[in-house]
Amino acid sequence: MTDNLIPVHGPTNPPADAAGPVRRMCQIIGLKPEKEAYYRELHADVWPGVLERLARSNIHNYSIFITEIAGKKYLVAYFEYGGTDLAADMQAIAADPETQRWWLETDPCQFPLPSAAPGEKWTGLECVFFMP
Amino acid sequence: MTDNLIPVHGPTNPPADAAGPVRRMCQIIGLKPEKEAYYRELHADVWPGVLERLARSNIHNYSIFITEIAGKKYLVAYFEYGGTDLAADMQAIAADPETQRWWLETDPCQFPLPSAAPGEKWTGLECVFFMP
Repeated sequence: MTDNLIPVHGPTNPPADAAGPVRRMCQIIGLKPEKEAYYRELHADVWPGVLERLARSNIHNYSIFITEIAGKKYLVAYFEYGGTDLAADMQAIAADPETQRWWLETDPCQFPLPSAAPGEKWTGLECVFFMP
Repeated sequence: MTDNLIPVHGPTNPPADAAGPVRRMCQIIGLKPEKEAYYRELHADVWPGVLERLARSNIHNYSIFITEIAGKKYLVAYFEYGGTDLAADMQAIAADPETQRWWLETDPCQFPLPSAAPGEKWTGLECVFFMP
């Protein structure tokens, strides 16, 4: 899927260990068109327990957008991670019963892309530029 | 291109006039694969005059990411607009000679999607969820 170009770092694309305490993350996943209306409805009023679990896992400034590319719908997520152990914080989300119930609603709306890492739903995007 | 679903607003997707003073914007555009290496090089060290003009136009927390969907490369931009006159602030960017020189380098790297608004390069994405 990718030609694995080598990242180019510099003043406006610092390597992760020099980018400061906040990690900016962007992810993409497919959206089933027949589920778009339900997905919008769910996300206009996300369950409080789901939001609380995200915040306790150090996720903030989280937006989800919809787009259409070549006749297919996609969701693009942007969020900021301010913790120090991303894997543990993500695991705490995955182990949360309320989040598991939430995913029973949202998973059927989505289709992962072939580029998603094994065991992941969303495909992570590589950052190439940042301006504070 | 779109079926124009009606936006659903609620506590986690407030209408724009209730979303506070910062507007979170996400945009997408195609990236020509033969120009990806040059695009990465340019964006690792964006010209200071270009960055200054963006900041003076109230654009902050600006990231650009790369992804690949169905064999094509795309750029996804996220930024926050903190001003009160987006059209005027964008016009000031477009009128800036240094930015115009910058775009002579970046425009040939990109291909606009058919969904871009007339006269626009990037396609704007609709927000469906926000958590502070």
